Amino acid sequence: MIRSLPRCWRALASIPLRTRAPKLALQLTSSVRRYATKEVPLTADTYAGKVERDPRFKQLASEDVDHFRSIVGDAGVITDKDDLLYFNEDWMRKYRGQSQLVLKPKTTEQVSQILKYCNDQSLAVCPQGGNTGLVGGSNPIFDEVIVCMSSMNQIRSFDDVSGIFKCDAGVVLETADQYLAEKGYIFPLDLGAKGSCQVGGVVATNAGGLRLLRYGSLHGSVLGLECVMPDGTVYNSMHSLRKDNTGYDLKQLFIGSEGTIGIITGVSILCPARPTAFNVALLAVDSYEAVQQVFVAARRELGEVLSAFEFMDRQSQELTHRHLKLDHPIEGEYPFYILIETSGSNKDHDDEKLENFLGQAMEDGLVLDGIIAQDEAQVKSLWAWRESVPEASTIGGGVYKYDVSLPLKDLYGLVEATQSELEKAGIVDMDDESKPVVQAFGYGHVGDGNLHLNVAVREYSKDIEKVLEPFVYEWIHGVGGSVSAEHGLGFQKKNYIGYSKTPIEIEMIKQVKNAYDPKGIMNPYKYV
Amino acid sequence: MIRSLPRCWRALASIPLRTRAPKLALQLTSSVRRYATKEVPLTADTYAGKVERDPRFKQLASEDVDHFRSIVGDAGVITDKDDLLYFNEDWMRKYRGQSQLVLKPKTTEQVSQILKYCNDQSLAVCPQGGNTGLVGGSNPIFDEVIVCMSSMNQIRSFDDVSGIFKCDAGVVLETADQYLAEKGYIFPLDLGAKGSCQVGGVVATNAGGLRLLRYGSLHGSVLGLECVMPDGTVYNSMHSLRKDNTGYDLKQLFIGSEGTIGIITGVSILCPARPTAFNVALLAVDSYEAVQQVFVAARRELGEVLSAFEFMDRQSQELTHRHLKLDHPIEGEYPFYILIETSGSNKDHDDEKLENFLGQAMEDGLVLDGIIAQDEAQVKSLWAWRESVPEASTIGGGVYKYDVSLPLKDLYGLVEATQSELEKAGIVDMDDESKPVVQAFGYGHVGDGNLHLNVAVREYSKDIEKVLEPFVYEWIHGVGGSVSAEHGLGFQKKNYIGYSKTPIEIEMIKQVKNAYDPKGIMNPYKYV
Repeated sequence: MIRSLPRCWRALASIPLRTRAPKLALQLTSSVRRYATKEVPLTADTYAGKVERDPRFKQLASEDVDHFRSIVGDAGVITDKDDLLYFNEDWMRKYRGQSQLVLKPKTTEQVSQILKYCNDQSLAVCPQGGNTGLVGGSNPIFDEVIVCMSSMNQIRSFDDVSGIFKCDAGVVLETADQYLAEKGYIFPLDLGAKGSCQVGGVVATNAGGLRLLRYGSLHGSVLGLECVMPDGTVYNSMHSLRKDNTGYDLKQLFIGSEGTIGIITGVSILCPARPTAFNVALLAVDSYEAVQQVFVAARRELGEVLSAFEFMDRQSQELTHRHLKLDHPIEGEYPFYILIETSGSNKDHDDEKLENFLGQAMEDGLVLDGIIAQDEAQVKSLWAWRESVPEASTIGGGVYKYDVSLPLKDLYGLVEATQSELEKAGIVDMDDESKPVVQAFGYGHVGDGNLHLNVAVREYSKDIEKVLEPFVYEWIHGVGGSVSAEHGLGFQKKNYIGYSKTPIEIEMIKQVKNAYDPKGIMNPYKYV
Repeated sequence: MIRSLPRCWRALASIPLRTRAPKLALQLTSSVRRYATKEVPLTADTYAGKVERDPRFKQLASEDVDHFRSIVGDAGVITDKDDLLYFNEDWMRKYRGQSQLVLKPKTTEQVSQILKYCNDQSLAVCPQGGNTGLVGGSNPIFDEVIVCMSSMNQIRSFDDVSGIFKCDAGVVLETADQYLAEKGYIFPLDLGAKGSCQVGGVVATNAGGLRLLRYGSLHGSVLGLECVMPDGTVYNSMHSLRKDNTGYDLKQLFIGSEGTIGIITGVSILCPARPTAFNVALLAVDSYEAVQQVFVAARRELGEVLSAFEFMDRQSQELTHRHLKLDHPIEGEYPFYILIETSGSNKDHDDEKLENFLGQAMEDGLVLDGIIAQDEAQVKSLWAWRESVPEASTIGGGVYKYDVSLPLKDLYGLVEATQSELEKAGIVDMDDESKPVVQAFGYGHVGDGNLHLNVAVREYSKDIEKVLEPFVYEWIHGVGGSVSAEHGLGFQKKNYIGYSKTPIEIEMIKQVKNAYDPKGIMNPYKYV
């Protein structure tokens, strides 16, 4: 049995939890972050000539601040320059806005009064959740008023018969999940930033994350929303209903709208029962075709208990090995590795399913080697190995990252095509230190068609960028993929929407935007 | 063990399949249906004074028909009065429109040319799929041009790695599911009318059906749509992607739009692996509270394999018993009955889970008695018993039916409140033939919060209706329910939208409608 191969476990189990650094970084307080390193350049300067302040928007005046103070009180108003920095910057320190005012409303009514005033006065608004985004969507570009949702953080209700959970938008994802865990339920979405990101924010950005394969997208699990529209009107569909077939499902527009048509203030979401049994296995296969074949077999054999199916190529493993200075959990070298997770209600059943499935896959020659975690520590270690890949990718000096969606059959083709393009340009070599690029490699959520294409470099340069872009986006467009799988467009990808949406779709998006936000005050300068 | 109680099985297994009559009725051809019974009154006459032809719409002229003939050819044009009847009437023969023209395009391009011409000429349009709706949404009211999708019936592609299925809108649901079954996959939605209804139609009406508890709503499983907008523009998001985070998810607007903003011509949908093992159990419990407790336990214990959780009250069983002239599968009388289905990838595991769960539920006193189907025939018989309830409800003479969504805790409260209201009016008695109402009773999909409230009557009368309406709608509104769980609003419920949507939501729906269909040609006189 494959289970009897516990090689390297001692080493593996000792992978330090610093591989979870990105999450820790999110939890830094503003005061820590502020003194971190040198100043982040203003987004308006970085993109000078490409983005300009819209003169239709009024400049903030002291009487505006007084008015807002009358709505949210002194404690809900931030105007101190140092304190503002935390909200003006993104956590990766790529973007910096120039907002002079952060408002922290505590109720939907306060959000409504704020937006109504902003709309009347033509003050631009930038809604902000946990500020954990990767595309600059939650930071202002110029002097937009930041409406921070952190103080709207109450759990509203939970129905332990139906599993329907309702909360304010500002509830932190981990808080929500911990609350649900105590009731035997699970939030149907998980992601690295869960200690900081907010429920409203993950809905506004249509976050994907680690449980999508099992529980589907937020478009299916969100049952209702409460949103404040730009004119202060409160749209409320906070149902306790799985089915409602009365007219257009408007809430869907807000899922992934990135704050451009209103502010989400409340979320109603259907939560599944929490699985009690988990298994994780790491497998070695010899081609991307085999990865796909194992995926098909896993969907069929593991069906209802399959909860993750991740793949990593050899190159990513080599970098991880160098980075962690640990042996790979599986001896020998193989072109591709797969991490499978099952979660269910009966450990014995899941064990048997997984062992039967893997036994058959090995007998068929699909899987060449593999290990199954024997306890919770090993489960965590295998995940830690997988989660260390992104960090390991930077050890050569830097890394260009592309988070994209592709048809499954084309998923790895992008990595190969990119490597080939770099070779054609003569700028890539794994060992030759004189070449600027180390290697293109790939890993990601096969189950969701989500590839993380990484290009490890020895230094960032315009020459490399010219080889990569628009090549990568055009390749994605050519096979019908999406330039953003889970991070949204925000500011960073605003100009790339055309690679994934047709002009007709973009026009239709604008029609909705214009109908719901005619003065365009909601999160301007972003993708719509 | 509960499994060792196979009482009444001989009788139960012999339930004739006429209990599936509604589905058979859908499969009648037009020629059969046409001679069925007396003429259906024109909807315009039935609702005289309440609905009027919109004079903005042009009357059809012979040159229009000539133009359409140039687009779809002779075979795609129906103008014969008798032939038109099939399309003008709904299958329940409640509604009859007055269209003089049915068009049967074969391609998206033809649909585009048709709509462009209609929009230019201000000709109103009524899109029609399998014409199996229950609310008159797919039939014209006046002289709308019917665009029938039956001839756009090609499967476009299936990716047996990702499970992504793409087809024309006119593919019959059963055809799609049979195609998928051969590949080891399942269409994530099933319903009684599957032999006639079309994939595009179920998406346009956001059908719920029998697999929703397991596979979720179409808002989660539909990955992309191709739709022709009123001006002929083709909106195309026929992705092969599970994740796409680039802008508003416009396709969601078409899911449940009931033909009011465009015509769906193509569907891309994610299909799960087909389960290989099925179990069905029928259980008796003594209160609605126990129904809820069993549901919570089933979600937890059966988790990933639970695929249906239906409940029926004693009154519904009494009527079914009288109607079928068969003993109830469970001896004795209990206030409530539950039908549970599991489906999974390993029969032994599912059997064990179900037996453990039921054993515990009986030990805890939650479940008082029960049986588990021993083979496929018994599985079908138990489902047949459940499916015979709607038909049985009519044996007293007639039945008022309400298909509604309610918070789970309030689900049965509506039945009790309705019965109490009827008693207050002194018009209900199970045995006294002089009273017009026999009994209010309930059954439905507990897993989805979907109640079928039925009021069995000895005759239809205005007096009964006055007691029931608006009482029922107001009660639903009072607990935050929805007046339509799965059938949409169409024409029948157009005036009741206000019980489930706020004026703000209705206004927001109208804004989308006006933006996308400024001339209002798409399915007029319906709910928007």
